[in-house]
Amino acid sequence: MLSDIEIAQGASMLPISKVAEKLGIGEDELECYGKYKAKLSDALMARLRDRPDGKLVLVTAINPTPAGEGKTTTTVGLGQAMQKIGKKAVIALREPSLGPVFGIKGGAAGGGYAQVVPMEDINLHFTGDMHAITSANNLLCAMLDNHLQQGNALGIDPRRILFKRCLDMNDRALRSTIVGLGGKMNGVPREDGFQITVASEVMAILCLASDITDLKRRLGDILVAYKYDNSPVYARDLRAEGAMAALLRDALKPNLVQTLENTPAIVHGGPFANIAHGCNSVRATKLALKLADYTITEAGFGSDLGAEKFLDIKCRYAGIAPSAIVLVATLRALKYNGGVEKARVGEPNGEALRAGLCNLEAHIENMQKYGVPVIVAINKFPTDTAGELELLAEYCRRRGARFALSEVFERGGEGGVALANAVVEACEEPGCFKLLYDEKAPIKEKVETIAREIYGAAGVVYSPAAQKAIAGIEALGKAELPVCVAKTQYSLSDDPKKLGRPQGFELSVKDVRLSAGAGFIVVYTGDIMTMPGLPKVPAAEHIDVDGDGIISGLF
Amino acid sequence: MLSDIEIAQGASMLPISKVAEKLGIGEDELECYGKYKAKLSDALMARLRDRPDGKLVLVTAINPTPAGEGKTTTTVGLGQAMQKIGKKAVIALREPSLGPVFGIKGGAAGGGYAQVVPMEDINLHFTGDMHAITSANNLLCAMLDNHLQQGNALGIDPRRILFKRCLDMNDRALRSTIVGLGGKMNGVPREDGFQITVASEVMAILCLASDITDLKRRLGDILVAYKYDNSPVYARDLRAEGAMAALLRDALKPNLVQTLENTPAIVHGGPFANIAHGCNSVRATKLALKLADYTITEAGFGSDLGAEKFLDIKCRYAGIAPSAIVLVATLRALKYNGGVEKARVGEPNGEALRAGLCNLEAHIENMQKYGVPVIVAINKFPTDTAGELELLAEYCRRRGARFALSEVFERGGEGGVALANAVVEACEEPGCFKLLYDEKAPIKEKVETIAREIYGAAGVVYSPAAQKAIAGIEALGKAELPVCVAKTQYSLSDDPKKLGRPQGFELSVKDVRLSAGAGFIVVYTGDIMTMPGLPKVPAAEHIDVDGDGIISGLF
Repeated sequence: MLSDIEIAQGASMLPISKVAEKLGIGEDELECYGKYKAKLSDALMARLRDRPDGKLVLVTAINPTPAGEGKTTTTVGLGQAMQKIGKKAVIALREPSLGPVFGIKGGAAGGGYAQVVPMEDINLHFTGDMHAITSANNLLCAMLDNHLQQGNALGIDPRRILFKRCLDMNDRALRSTIVGLGGKMNGVPREDGFQITVASEVMAILCLASDITDLKRRLGDILVAYKYDNSPVYARDLRAEGAMAALLRDALKPNLVQTLENTPAIVHGGPFANIAHGCNSVRATKLALKLADYTITEAGFGSDLGAEKFLDIKCRYAGIAPSAIVLVATLRALKYNGGVEKARVGEPNGEALRAGLCNLEAHIENMQKYGVPVIVAINKFPTDTAGELELLAEYCRRRGARFALSEVFERGGEGGVALANAVVEACEEPGCFKLLYDEKAPIKEKVETIAREIYGAAGVVYSPAAQKAIAGIEALGKAELPVCVAKTQYSLSDDPKKLGRPQGFELSVKDVRLSAGAGFIVVYTGDIMTMPGLPKVPAAEHIDVDGDGIISGLF
Repeated sequence: MLSDIEIAQGASMLPISKVAEKLGIGEDELECYGKYKAKLSDALMARLRDRPDGKLVLVTAINPTPAGEGKTTTTVGLGQAMQKIGKKAVIALREPSLGPVFGIKGGAAGGGYAQVVPMEDINLHFTGDMHAITSANNLLCAMLDNHLQQGNALGIDPRRILFKRCLDMNDRALRSTIVGLGGKMNGVPREDGFQITVASEVMAILCLASDITDLKRRLGDILVAYKYDNSPVYARDLRAEGAMAALLRDALKPNLVQTLENTPAIVHGGPFANIAHGCNSVRATKLALKLADYTITEAGFGSDLGAEKFLDIKCRYAGIAPSAIVLVATLRALKYNGGVEKARVGEPNGEALRAGLCNLEAHIENMQKYGVPVIVAINKFPTDTAGELELLAEYCRRRGARFALSEVFERGGEGGVALANAVVEACEEPGCFKLLYDEKAPIKEKVETIAREIYGAAGVVYSPAAQKAIAGIEALGKAELPVCVAKTQYSLSDDPKKLGRPQGFELSVKDVRLSAGAGFIVVYTGDIMTMPGLPKVPAAEHIDVDGDGIISGLF
C-alpha cells in the first residue's frame, strides 16, 4: 500500500468552488486560498441563519494506546461513506499544529484512503489560522511587557503574570525562560515561558466564539495577571482586544477542503483536549449543520477528555446536541488495555481482549449518560479474527450499543458503508440529550460529577494550591463556568499506567486556573505539558521539497 | 482629506484575476487568496522565462528625516501615473511587517491617493509570507536546541550560537533572554534573543533566492553556531534546510495586488535595509520585468543604505540593472537638513533650503556613480513656494539630474504624470550600469570603497572585534561576498546627528558578521536594533474591528 502522502498527492481533487457547489455555496460566498482551500464568508453564515440544522454525529474513542485507534481516519472515512450511501454529509475537523508535524506524531488529516486534502497544505500553514492566533497571543504579551516598561500604571506584579507567549512549534527550550534582560532599555526582567499555539487560550476562544463581537468580548476577558494589590488584570485593561480581534478576523472564518473522495470537509480550529476543550470551532460545526443533513465531527483523545468537553463545554455554549456518538476502538488497543505488550497486539488473544473490554465498556456507558445512541466502530486490521470480532459485537449489543466494522483506511468510503448505515439508523432515534452537570453548581461539585460519572473515581482530593485557587475564582465571581479537566489521556484515571477500567481511585487535583476568556475553569490533575519537545530524530529531518515544489516526508 | 484607511476602504478594486489579465496572466497561473490577492505560480515564471525584460526604475530617497519624504507613496503614485500616460507598468514593493503596524510607524502600503490595496490585508497577515519565515526561522532554532538536548553530537558551543529566534512583533522584552531553564527535561540553559522577522537571515535568503533549489542551498548555508573546536555549524549540519524550504515553498511565490487605480503591484519580501539588503525579492522583480514594460521598485531608507544594497547586492545576484533612478525628497526634509527644527519646516526659508541641498547633492552623485540617469522627484506640499521649487529645479539641472514635481498623495496617478514622463525619457538613455566594487576584492577594500564613494568618509577604522571577525570570515573562505553595511539611516555618516553632507569623518566599524546563506558580509558601524519596542501608547490600542469585520485604526 502507498504511504499517506503518496495517496494524498495522487488524489483527484475538485476545484474548491465545485466542492462548495455541492453544498449550495456560491462562488461569491467563498474566499479562495489557492485552488483547493477556501474560507467560508460571514455572508454565507448570515444567509443560512434560519435554515434548520442537520444531524450532528460525534466521533470519539477509547483511551488512546500506542497500538493506535484511527479516530480521525474513521471520521473522514465515515463522511466519505455517508456520501457513498447517498447522504449529504460534511466532515468537521480540527486543524493540525506544526509542532507534531515536525516532531514525532506527524500530521492530522486522516490516513490511508480516508484523508482530507491537500494534505501538505493542511499540515503546514493551511490558511494561516494558527499564525493569526500566534500573532494575537504574542501581541497581548508584547503590550503587557510594554506596559511594565512604560511605568506600569496598572501596578501589575511581574511575578504573577499568567498569560504566556506562544509559538506553533515543538520547542522545549522555550518552556521556561527569562525575558527582559539586558538593562533598562530592554524591558523588565521576569520569568516567562512559551506554550505551543494550540494550547493558547486564544485558540480556545476562537473555537468557542459565535461571532466577531463575541470574540472580542472573550479576548477582553482573558485573565492576564494580578496586580500588587491582588486584583485581576484582564486583556481589556491593556486595550489589546481590538487589535487581537483584527488579527483574528479571517481566522474566525471556517475553512473548506475535501476528502480523497471529494466529500466536503470543514477544518477549523484545534485546541488542546486537556487544558482546553479539544474540538473544532463552534462556528464551523454550526455552519456544517446548516449545510448538510449529517455533520461528522470528532473530539480529541478518548471520550473521557475530548467528548466530555465537546458535550459539556462546546454543546453547552453553542446550543447544539449530537444525534449519535461513534466510539472508535481496535482489537489491538483493547488487547493492549488487557495487558498485552505493544509488539504482540496483532496476535489472536481472546483472553486479553476480554480483559481489555472493560475500557470500552466505560466509554460506552459514559456516552450513554448523555442520552445519545452509541455506535462502536471497530477500525479493522488484517490480523483481526472473526471470532474476536463476534465476541466484541455481542459485547456491544448487550450494552445497548450498535456495532460496525470500519475498513476506511484501506478501502475509503466503501469500507465505511456498514458504519454509515448504523449511524443513519441511530440518528433516527428520538433525541434526549442532556448535559452532565449544571454550570451554576459549585466548582468542586462539577469536578466531582465528572470524576465519579466519567472517570469512575471514588472521590476527589484537592491540593492546598487547588483549594486556594478555587477560592480565588469564587472571589472573582467566575465560579459559574463549565470545568475543563486536564488529565492524562492514557487512562480513565489520573494515572497514565492504570489501563482498562480503574476503580476506587481518588482523583488528585493539583491546581485550578481560570480561562475567563474561553469561559471555563481548568482543573489540573497532573503536570500537563503545553510545550512539547522534539525527539532524538525529528520528523523535520526527513521533510523536503524538490525543485518542482513537491513536498515529501510528511506523514 | 480622508485618512489613508478611509481612502483604501473606498477603493474600487478589480477582482485580482482581472488585474492579472491586464498583464496577460491566465487564471490558472494565479493562486488566489481571497478576491483581491494572489500568488503568482511557478508555471507563470517558467512560461515567461525567455521573454525580454522591460525597463527597471528604482525609487530611492535622501536620508530620512522626521519631516517625512513619501518614498513608498511616490513609488505607488509613479506606477499609477505610468498607467495614466498609457505605459504598461508594474510596481514591485516590499511587504510590511506587523511590528510597525502595532507600534508607531504604521503600515507600509503608500498613502493618500497612492496606495496598494487591500490595505488592511497587506498590513496584517497578507498571504502569510512573514509567518512562513517566522516558522522556518524558529524550526531551525528548535532543531538546534534539540540537538544540544539530545547529546550535542556536533559539539556545538552553547555560548557561540549566532542564529536567533524571531517573531513578527515589536517586543523589546524578547531582545535578550535565557532559554532552556527548568531542569534536565527542559533543554540546555543558554543566552538567546529574538529578532523581528524581517531582520531574520531567512527573510534575506527568501528575497535573494532564484528558485526552490537555490533557496534550499542558501538555507543550508546559514552559519548557525561554532563548535567547541571553533569550526562552523551550518543549518545543513542540523538537516534543517529541507523542512525549512518546505515551509517556505509558497512564501517564495510573489504576491499580486493592485493600487487604488488598479495598477498591478507585486508585493513580496521585505528585509531590513541595514543588517540586510532592504528591497523586495529577486523573484518578484524579475517576474515584473517579464510582465511589463516598466517595473517601478523601491529600496529602504536613503540611497546610501537601500539603493546601494539594491545595486551592489540585489542587482549583482539577479543580473539586472535599473534604467533610471528616482530620488525622492521634500523641501521640508531639505530644510530640516539645513538646520530648521521639525515644527518650522513648513515655512518659506530659502537659506535653510540652500544649506540642506548638500544632502540631495550627495545622493544625486552617489547614484550617478552607478551610470544610471537620476530624476529628482519632489513630493510637493501645499506650503512649498514657487521660488523654492525653482531654486531646487535649477540645482538639479546643474548636476545633470532631471527634476519633476509629484503630487500623487493628493491627486493619485494624475499628480505623477510629469514624473512619469521624465522617467520614460530617462529610460531611453543608453544604459551604462556598473557595480561599485568587485566582490572578489578583500573585505576591507570593499568597505572602504562604499565608505569613501557613498558616505563621503575620509577613511575607516576597525575595532579589534571587527578585525578578528574579518580574519574569521577569511579563514572560512567566505570573504568574496558583497558587503552589507549596517549604519544609521539618518545621516550619510555613522553618526545620526550629522545631517547635510558630513565631510572628513572616519567610519567606525564595530563588528562584522557573516550572513553566509543570504550571501553577504554584514558590517556593523553601530548598535543596530533588530527587535524594536512598542511606544508608550502603541498603535495597537486604537486598532479595532467591528461586528461586520471592518477594521479601523490602521494608518
